[in-house]
Amino acid sequence: MRNLKLKLAYDGTDFHGWQIQPGRPTIQGTLAEALERVTGASGIPQGAGRTDAGVHALGQVATWTTTAPIPTRNLAIALNDILPPSIRVLSVEEVAPEFHPRTSAKSKTYRYRILRAEICSPFLARYVWHHPYPFDEGAIIAAAPLLEGEHDFTSFAAVDPDRTERLAAGQASNIRTIFSSSCARQGEELIYTVRGNGFLHHMVRNLVGTFLLIGRGTLRPHDLSKILGACNRSANPGATAPAPGLCLVEVEY
Amino acid sequence: MRNLKLKLAYDGTDFHGWQIQPGRPTIQGTLAEALERVTGASGIPQGAGRTDAGVHALGQVATWTTTAPIPTRNLAIALNDILPPSIRVLSVEEVAPEFHPRTSAKSKTYRYRILRAEICSPFLARYVWHHPYPFDEGAIIAAAPLLEGEHDFTSFAAVDPDRTERLAAGQASNIRTIFSSSCARQGEELIYTVRGNGFLHHMVRNLVGTFLLIGRGTLRPHDLSKILGACNRSANPGATAPAPGLCLVEVEY
Repeated sequence: MRNLKLKLAYDGTDFHGWQIQPGRPTIQGTLAEALERVTGASGIPQGAGRTDAGVHALGQVATWTTTAPIPTRNLAIALNDILPPSIRVLSVEEVAPEFHPRTSAKSKTYRYRILRAEICSPFLARYVWHHPYPFDEGAIIAAAPLLEGEHDFTSFAAVDPDRTERLAAGQASNIRTIFSSSCARQGEELIYTVRGNGFLHHMVRNLVGTFLLIGRGTLRPHDLSKILGACNRSANPGATAPAPGLCLVEVEY
Repeated sequence: MRNLKLKLAYDGTDFHGWQIQPGRPTIQGTLAEALERVTGASGIPQGAGRTDAGVHALGQVATWTTTAPIPTRNLAIALNDILPPSIRVLSVEEVAPEFHPRTSAKSKTYRYRILRAEICSPFLARYVWHHPYPFDEGAIIAAAPLLEGEHDFTSFAAVDPDRTERLAAGQASNIRTIFSSSCARQGEELIYTVRGNGFLHHMVRNLVGTFLLIGRGTLRPHDLSKILGACNRSANPGATAPAPGLCLVEVEY
C-alpha cells in the first residue's frame, strides 16, 4: 500500500466545503472522483483540515492510500487535467505509511482578509470580507498577539452538542497553542494571519468577529482573556466572520 | 433629460458579454434591470465597447439618459446594493447631453494576461490564459510595438458578413490607430497592453493569437506588415486567444 501526500490549492466559492457530502459538490468528493477516474482505484482522501463552504486553500494537504502504481508526477498531471480549474494539485509525493495529514501536522497557518475599500472590486469579492465601515484598526493590530500561547478556545469554537459530550467524557480537548497571531494593513486590506498547532471549528472566523468588536470599541483588548477564561461560546459576543475571507495558507510538518 | 456617465468594473466569467440578449445574463441587461429597479425608469445603457462573453472590465464606461432626479452618489450606492458582486459601479457623474461613451472616447486600453506558470492557480483561472508551453517571449516583446500607428486591421478582425457589406458600401472602416502596443513579463505572467482609438471585434485576442505564432517561430515579426497589408482574416494564421485573459482597462476621453 502506498501513502500519497497531495498538496492542494482551491477556490472554495463553489463548493460545500472540504468534507464529502452526498449530492453536493465538495473538495474531498471531487478529488475522490478524480482519483478514481485516473487510477481506477477508489478510496476517500484524508485532509489536514476540514475547510467550510466558501473557505479557500493555498496549501491544503491530503493523503490517499492506494495500490495503484501510477508515478506521482503523472498522477498530479492527470488529476489537474480532469479536476475543475477551481481545484489544483500542486504536488504529489509518496510518504511513510504512518504519515497522517492532520495528526502529523506541527502547525497550520490561516489568513483572513478584510477589504477596507469603499467599493469591493469584482475580482476580490470571492476572496475577502468587504467591511468598509469605520473601526479602530490599530486596536485590532495591538490585540491580535494577545491570543498567542496555549489556551482553551471553547469560547471561540462553534457549538456542537456531539463535541460537548466528547469533551465532557475526556475524549477531546479544546486546548490549542497559537504560535503567532498578527494583523497588518496591506494596501486596502486588513489581513489577519494565525499559526497554531490546531484550530477548532469556526475558530479563526470567530477570532476575527471578536477582533471586530475590539475595533469598534465594544470590547477592550483585555476582555480577550476574560472571554478565553469563560470557556463558553455564549461569553463571546463576537459573530462568526464570513467564510470567503478565510484561506488555509499552509500546513507545516 | 439627464445624461449619466457610469464607470464600471466587472468579472465577465458568468456573463454572455456586454450586449443585452434575451434570456441570457449580460452586463448591459443586468445593469438595465438594476437601473430600472432603483429609479423606476427604463432605458438601455450604452457602453464604450461591447466586451465578449468571459471578457472583464476594470473601467468600462456607459451612459444612461433619464429624467429620474436621483443624485448621482445615491444612484451609485443603490446600484451596488442590488447588482451582483461581479459587477460594480465605480462612479456616476452627470455629463453633457452630447457625450457618448463610444464616439466621444479618444482611446481605449486593453490588457491581455498570459500565465506562464506550469500550474494555474485557482485564484487566477478566471482572469488569465494559461499557456505554460515554451515559446520565445523576447520575440513577442520585440514584435508588439510594430503594430503601433494607423493600419487597416481587417486581418485581425472577426469575419462578419454584415460588416463586410457595410465596408464595401463605405459605411464603415477597419482603419484604426494604435497609440501604444507593448508586451512585458510581470512575475509569472506575460502581459500585453494596447491602447488605440478603437478596436474591431476580436482584434486584441487575434493580435495575441498572432503574437503567439511569432513566439513559436511560425511567423517572423516582419510577417505582421504582410498580414496587415493583406486586409483579409484568412491571410492571418493566428487563432483567437481565449476570452478570460482579456480586460478592458480604461476608456480615455
